[in-house]
Amino acid sequence: MIVEILAVGTELLLGNIANTNAQYLSRRCAVLGFSVYHHTVVGDNEDRMTEAIRQALGRSDIVILTGGLGPTEDDMTKEVCAKVMGFSLEEDAHTRKRISGYFQATRRKKITENNWKQAVVPVGATVLDNDNGTAPGLILRKGEKTAILLPGPPNELMPLFTEKAEPYLRTLQPETIYSKMVKVCGIGESRAETMILDLIDSQTNPTIATYAKTGEVHLRVTARAADKTQAKKLVKPVVKELKNRFGIHIYSTKEEEGLEHTVVKLLKKYGLTVATAESMTGGLLSGRLVNVAGASECFCEGFVTYSNQAKRKALGVKKETLKRYGAVSEETAKEMAKGGAKAAGVKACVAVTGFAGPEDSKEEPKGLTYISCYLNDKVSVEEFHFTGNRMKIREQAVVQALDLLRRCIVEQYQR
Amino acid sequence: MIVEILAVGTELLLGNIANTNAQYLSRRCAVLGFSVYHHTVVGDNEDRMTEAIRQALGRSDIVILTGGLGPTEDDMTKEVCAKVMGFSLEEDAHTRKRISGYFQATRRKKITENNWKQAVVPVGATVLDNDNGTAPGLILRKGEKTAILLPGPPNELMPLFTEKAEPYLRTLQPETIYSKMVKVCGIGESRAETMILDLIDSQTNPTIATYAKTGEVHLRVTARAADKTQAKKLVKPVVKELKNRFGIHIYSTKEEEGLEHTVVKLLKKYGLTVATAESMTGGLLSGRLVNVAGASECFCEGFVTYSNQAKRKALGVKKETLKRYGAVSEETAKEMAKGGAKAAGVKACVAVTGFAGPEDSKEEPKGLTYISCYLNDKVSVEEFHFTGNRMKIREQAVVQALDLLRRCIVEQYQR
Repeated sequence: MIVEILAVGTELLLGNIANTNAQYLSRRCAVLGFSVYHHTVVGDNEDRMTEAIRQALGRSDIVILTGGLGPTEDDMTKEVCAKVMGFSLEEDAHTRKRISGYFQATRRKKITENNWKQAVVPVGATVLDNDNGTAPGLILRKGEKTAILLPGPPNELMPLFTEKAEPYLRTLQPETIYSKMVKVCGIGESRAETMILDLIDSQTNPTIATYAKTGEVHLRVTARAADKTQAKKLVKPVVKELKNRFGIHIYSTKEEEGLEHTVVKLLKKYGLTVATAESMTGGLLSGRLVNVAGASECFCEGFVTYSNQAKRKALGVKKETLKRYGAVSEETAKEMAKGGAKAAGVKACVAVTGFAGPEDSKEEPKGLTYISCYLNDKVSVEEFHFTGNRMKIREQAVVQALDLLRRCIVEQYQR
Repeated sequence: MIVEILAVGTELLLGNIANTNAQYLSRRCAVLGFSVYHHTVVGDNEDRMTEAIRQALGRSDIVILTGGLGPTEDDMTKEVCAKVMGFSLEEDAHTRKRISGYFQATRRKKITENNWKQAVVPVGATVLDNDNGTAPGLILRKGEKTAILLPGPPNELMPLFTEKAEPYLRTLQPETIYSKMVKVCGIGESRAETMILDLIDSQTNPTIATYAKTGEVHLRVTARAADKTQAKKLVKPVVKELKNRFGIHIYSTKEEEGLEHTVVKLLKKYGLTVATAESMTGGLLSGRLVNVAGASECFCEGFVTYSNQAKRKALGVKKETLKRYGAVSEETAKEMAKGGAKAAGVKACVAVTGFAGPEDSKEEPKGLTYISCYLNDKVSVEEFHFTGNRMKIREQAVVQALDLLRRCIVEQYQR
């Protein structure tokens, strides 16, 4: 089945925001086994919206519309879509009640007459209750064509889609689609693809799709079958084969688990506490660990030692080491990791030192980075040559630092 | 003049990447005074691409195509666009030479036969040399219609557009467009809009557009006139009025200057060195300061004190303070800032402590944050109630911390 994603909003055409909703919905559609052939964006303009909806319904089975469901005059996605598809509008008592309740619960400013506009729905449409805002989602079905209307704010759209629209979309899909994610770190996308070229070339069902993220590659294995048991059965051997090929480089097979979540989970599992010692990354590494709610159980303290003096004072890096090998060296990285663990009184510490540019320095090329992990008196250190701009280099260093910590824990505790 | 942005690439339709090129180009078009009415995305499919190009050329004066200029079979934007517009193709000796040169300079893998595909151009097209890749940009003009083809990777597209396509687009624009950016921090978007409602309501030339960013609002003042001098003259009094209204909340009027750049510039100007003391933000604040190349001149050391013990040990926060007022309190924030400055031996320190959630804690609601700035023996502290998810709350805290530091410096040194 063919899906089109049609976003409404002048703010998109002005470049005020990026159309991340289209990306999110496209990924979900891929998971559900639908083919997306077009993304379209139009502004808050009745004529162009009418034309776009008509065209989308003409060439696709399902049109997912985002945005334009707000309470103002400009918001007219619901009205235009109803008109194009031949639905009349009427107030929905249930939605009116929910809007009142939402205003009470969130102690927002007084309800204005405008707000009741959001309680009006196309007669015969399925209303999707929105727990994070006042605009409900809507499903309009006419003949073989379906329009799904979702509010624009991502924090409203995403839960509404996964919780309410996806179950509906699954009923339109005759086959069951089942997919499993395999998340790989420390191997570039092209190398990862080369490592599984034979699997990709011979794939029909399941398929393997690769997604590149900074320092990571995500592989999605998707199967189609008559039911979930059969689909799972198809996916299983492929995931097993990927595990064989990527081994320790796989950090998770869970959809929602980021690298920092895996690391925090491992630290908690083995009762470890970690410190960070950062130069080039300047706090981005500790900042990412703290992304995980409950990180406080295993992370107490981080050292951002940007100057050599700070490296000496806070981490006890030797003056001699800095002089002889330089701040960006294997030796300094190791002393930072060891010193950080000692200073924080913990068993583990990851340290990062490198040159992020913007230009090559006198001594070393831009991108040269040393990452060291101290764990239970063992020190590991790795050398990296990252490419890209200053920010990109630092982001890659954060990913590799988390991954080195992960691999050190796995090696000491799980082998 | 009407512009349409047409992106080509199956990776966009699979949700592998977001269409950030469309956002970038839309912002630039707004600055240049062009109206963007549609964004479209199609995959690497000849029929759908043909239809999309034909439609875009039918309803717009200028179509900017992105992606599909690579060396593989799948890449066919140039071929399809030339066919639709009636151009024949032939190899361009100049481009062939540049491709050879690029491979030599970047010491890439050997050139394959495929790569010469990128040297083929529509006869009569203007070739835009690409300094960051092998696919040149192209301008095709037929009658009143213009197609501009740009490579998909943002690091190639952006410089190619600003340096080579923009000068061309300016020649199509009969009026001169001049705009100035006013960047405001510490005032929400709706409050900022209310503060200038009269200016927005009465605007015709120049216009004021507002862009919301995390913790910031950017106001773009744009004028149209016969020449630059006249356009500048129109913009000037409006910028002056905005300065009157937003006062110290304006941190910059420079397009490319972020809040961290302004802060580093001020620190350098007054010969100040700053330290950071972070709890909830966990290093994101120092990480953002280090975004600025050359930050090492004014930033030496940061303390990520996530646990109470670390706050006491590294920053000297009193046990009594933590017990009596809690870790998230005005008193703790102040002691963190003061202690951080002392521990690092510097004149300035910004401290952040708060609850980022995901849930409300027993003691305090999610979002409650105290930010303190110590500068030359004076301590300021501010209380914030941020909303949003864990990450959003932490990002807002970083912005407000940078801004408090900025305001403290301005107040002590520039008043």
